[in-house]
Amino acid sequence: MWVSVSVFVGGSPSIGSMVGSLFSISETTLVLSSFEVKFQVTTLPDDFPDAHSLINDLRLEYVIAVEGVVRSRPSESVNKKMKTGLIEVAAEHVQVLNAVRSKLPFLVTTADDAKESVKEEIRLRFRCLDLRRQQMNFNMMLRHRVVKLIRRYLEDVYGFVEIETPILSRSTPEGARDYLVPSRVQRGTFYALPQSPQLFKQMLMVSGFDRYYQIARCFRDEDIRADRQPEFTQLDMELAFTPLEDMLRLNEDLIRKVFLEIKGVHLPNPFPRLTYVEAMNRYGTDRPDTRFDLELKDVSDIFVESPFRVFADSLKNGGIIKVLCVPSGAKSYSNTALKKGDIYNEAIKSGAKGLPFLKVLDDGEVEGIPALVSSLDPTSKEQLLRRCSAGPGDLILFAVGRHASVNKTLDRLRMFVGNEMDLIDHSRHSILWVTDFPMFEWNDSEQRLEALHHPFTAPKPEDVEDLPSARALAYDMVYNGVEIGGGSLRIYKREVQQKVLEIVGISPEQAEAKFGYLLEALDMGAPPHGGIAYGLDRLVMLLADANSIRDVIAFPKTTTAQCALTRAPSEVDPQQLKDLSFQTQ
Amino acid sequence: MWVSVSVFVGGSPSIGSMVGSLFSISETTLVLSSFEVKFQVTTLPDDFPDAHSLINDLRLEYVIAVEGVVRSRPSESVNKKMKTGLIEVAAEHVQVLNAVRSKLPFLVTTADDAKESVKEEIRLRFRCLDLRRQQMNFNMMLRHRVVKLIRRYLEDVYGFVEIETPILSRSTPEGARDYLVPSRVQRGTFYALPQSPQLFKQMLMVSGFDRYYQIARCFRDEDIRADRQPEFTQLDMELAFTPLEDMLRLNEDLIRKVFLEIKGVHLPNPFPRLTYVEAMNRYGTDRPDTRFDLELKDVSDIFVESPFRVFADSLKNGGIIKVLCVPSGAKSYSNTALKKGDIYNEAIKSGAKGLPFLKVLDDGEVEGIPALVSSLDPTSKEQLLRRCSAGPGDLILFAVGRHASVNKTLDRLRMFVGNEMDLIDHSRHSILWVTDFPMFEWNDSEQRLEALHHPFTAPKPEDVEDLPSARALAYDMVYNGVEIGGGSLRIYKREVQQKVLEIVGISPEQAEAKFGYLLEALDMGAPPHGGIAYGLDRLVMLLADANSIRDVIAFPKTTTAQCALTRAPSEVDPQQLKDLSFQTQ
Repeated sequence: MWVSVSVFVGGSPSIGSMVGSLFSISETTLVLSSFEVKFQVTTLPDDFPDAHSLINDLRLEYVIAVEGVVRSRPSESVNKKMKTGLIEVAAEHVQVLNAVRSKLPFLVTTADDAKESVKEEIRLRFRCLDLRRQQMNFNMMLRHRVVKLIRRYLEDVYGFVEIETPILSRSTPEGARDYLVPSRVQRGTFYALPQSPQLFKQMLMVSGFDRYYQIARCFRDEDIRADRQPEFTQLDMELAFTPLEDMLRLNEDLIRKVFLEIKGVHLPNPFPRLTYVEAMNRYGTDRPDTRFDLELKDVSDIFVESPFRVFADSLKNGGIIKVLCVPSGAKSYSNTALKKGDIYNEAIKSGAKGLPFLKVLDDGEVEGIPALVSSLDPTSKEQLLRRCSAGPGDLILFAVGRHASVNKTLDRLRMFVGNEMDLIDHSRHSILWVTDFPMFEWNDSEQRLEALHHPFTAPKPEDVEDLPSARALAYDMVYNGVEIGGGSLRIYKREVQQKVLEIVGISPEQAEAKFGYLLEALDMGAPPHGGIAYGLDRLVMLLADANSIRDVIAFPKTTTAQCALTRAPSEVDPQQLKDLSFQTQ
Repeated sequence: MWVSVSVFVGGSPSIGSMVGSLFSISETTLVLSSFEVKFQVTTLPDDFPDAHSLINDLRLEYVIAVEGVVRSRPSESVNKKMKTGLIEVAAEHVQVLNAVRSKLPFLVTTADDAKESVKEEIRLRFRCLDLRRQQMNFNMMLRHRVVKLIRRYLEDVYGFVEIETPILSRSTPEGARDYLVPSRVQRGTFYALPQSPQLFKQMLMVSGFDRYYQIARCFRDEDIRADRQPEFTQLDMELAFTPLEDMLRLNEDLIRKVFLEIKGVHLPNPFPRLTYVEAMNRYGTDRPDTRFDLELKDVSDIFVESPFRVFADSLKNGGIIKVLCVPSGAKSYSNTALKKGDIYNEAIKSGAKGLPFLKVLDDGEVEGIPALVSSLDPTSKEQLLRRCSAGPGDLILFAVGRHASVNKTLDRLRMFVGNEMDLIDHSRHSILWVTDFPMFEWNDSEQRLEALHHPFTAPKPEDVEDLPSARALAYDMVYNGVEIGGGSLRIYKREVQQKVLEIVGISPEQAEAKFGYLLEALDMGAPPHGGIAYGLDRLVMLLADANSIRDVIAFPKTTTAQCALTRAPSEVDPQQLKDLSFQTQ
């Protein structure tokens, strides 16, 4: 129930109002709950009989207005457990502003206490009830506080300027599928909804706005995963004349400020950094969760001459062998589990063909996959155990094959084991930069190099001579194993930009057609520049300890990209399609 | 030229940097101009020959970095006209960061001095040069300041919460054509880009966020007029439990604050108000420019018995006759002009069939359209002149016919005459509310009533019994004859909402399909609520004294809804269309 209360103190004129929902109703008492505080309204049958008798007509979620006097509670109704337990509002007038006529699909307070019991489908369908829940209200308010804090920090401390860029825009090659908007004026042409304001913000740099930011809506027509939405919000920024170190420091300051103000958490100063190569070597991923150790070790050299054919053959074919040594893991995972349990399935799901393992016994001997055990001569065994710092009771998990797939498997196993064995210290906050990404990676299905970030990312100056294998001036910010932001310094010289576009397979003609305006701009006095973008939904989700980004978005889409509330997308009037001169097949 | 200058004071470490463009180059001196200030860099041939010699390689709009020492200028180069005329930067190192390789389509400084000489088409095409112009930079910075001020005022003074609403949304009946986005997942269905966040913000009210605001992007696929864009930005707000008077006061406070801080203008407190009927009667429009008087007068009663058939017949057919009396207008407009000149054409363009007029001669007699003059008996003439307060030298312009067309004609003539005769006091600021709009107006082509604002607008309580002719709790804010904001209290009871939808011809089934979620929400504890939306682009345009909203949008569309920079909308890859399973006809 929504209540507007005009409060009189000691009978003097109204000093304020409070809006809240009805928490409970009894014969003479209403408990009203705003999102911050609960308080009690008492009716006085003798003094204000009308106000009193109206209580019988009230139901939960009714909207009422109460006028009354704030007074000390009579001693028998003092409630010391309640913040406002010493006072109450003695109601003089009660008015029903709006009743509840339909049966509520769920009770707001109940849903709040046991939210798991209300299906998300129902919550999204009746979002206006769902958003009344204390938790959802908290999430939306937290989101507001985060955005407010970020804006003011960037504006007041660093002099950033907020500039809006178009939503009706042109496709840029961010790698995902565009949402298209057919043009009515120019038949057969389409706007694309932006996947990011990338090129516009670069144009702003060439236009002299040297510190731009925007809380920007972005769009990707991809199949939705748990933490993705077709439209999402990005904190987008770009700076001119700002060297890499200043860029990182500014962003660290910002994120440290956000975590401190919102969560009361002190993040390290400076943030630790890992190069891409280090991160992949040690964690098998470019977004490592460093709240626990369990680092990967490369043991390829130990198995070069191994009689264990699976290993030796793979190495001959250019593969590698890496291991994850799980301290005290031997007891946690039975041989059966390792051969066909969840941990085995985890390895298989990651693309591995099996899960070779060894356990270190109390006497220093090993057991595990027989062919692997028998292939180990004493020297190899000793080398292996030393490399892993493995002792009695430890478990060694192997992955073998190509670099990428070995890392993928062990990253997945590392997170699986970390969670299962409760190795993650949830009181810790792992934040770090990953830097020095490769400019390009090989796209096997298209048989070409593609940009790891996007083709406007600048190469490291010292790598410029060999662009295809150059490292990029790119940086990702990773929090607890989640990439929360990513950016780069950009190419600001036309000839470099053209070369990079060529490397990713965009011909000069295509480049001219699609990015002609960018190439032109780079020749008209483009300053060195760079920037970053944060996934705001995800950042807020982490700050709110929410389970899903849908819980920090007021009106999110479902996993089938639908709005459960409005039922968008929907069929449209045939006339609208006729105006656009198109038909569905 | 963009310049990054690291400044050393007296040889001590860098104390800051400045970014600016090159204003002029001479043999030993660069003048750098940031948007706020110009300053001079001097090279020292003897001390720093490298820095000195590099100057020869520089051209306008080059991007350079200068390191140097700030020092007093030698007395011979002191320039007292310049803010920084007492100091200069003595350059120790000069580095070219980026050169200009293409011929610039226009010079930034020249374009700034005589911007009319550069066609808008070229300016939009080379927007990154155009935005470097001092005027455009000023406009964008002003826009930023306006948005920043509004946000902080609403957040800090009134506790508003910013909440984002979806862009991929469902069509709502705002009257304009929607931009559609085909869904790939559900073939044959479409998202609509929002014309406003209207229903979402109402859902937020039912969700308990009693003070919501958003700087929201909105979309209308209409043929573009000079001051319209396919996508535009709206300051959108909605409040629960807020009576009309509080709503107006809050918004007056906001706009007064904006005008004071941004333009140094004190707007009146409170804002004057006109009802819709008053505004139409006195000015012929619901957005009157009151910087000059020239009010319309209804003279129908004087002509009821008139022998002038055109007038009498029109009155018999339910028409009216109104006049505009232009003081001293007789000299300004010759009879020829009134019969076939610009002012006549203005009347015709407004839909009038002619421009009946009278001039008051020195002797109190009248001349003009002969049939009209001769039809006036002395009593009628006296009544007419008294009604118009017309005296010798004044001009009386007539419009006859149906209410709406008469008002349209005289509104247009009033503005035409006001401009031509320079009656508008440009030092004045006309701001006012128009209130009490009718709920509905008759749509002649569709032969039905339609909502004047939108069908969620609440009727005045005293008019509820006769809804079709009820007045609405709606209000528009009008500045210098331009509607800058409009809003209303909303319907919050389901039965009223259903009746209003029926009146505008939406059947219960259609209502259920399109707004079922709203109707449902109104039954689940919807508080009284209302709000307003401001056209931000237009507001900023007025504050910046810009000629077009395109001059306050970083990357606007042209009048054919194209982006001159990126060439959007564009053709797309056939695969993209195939993914969507549609084809253009």
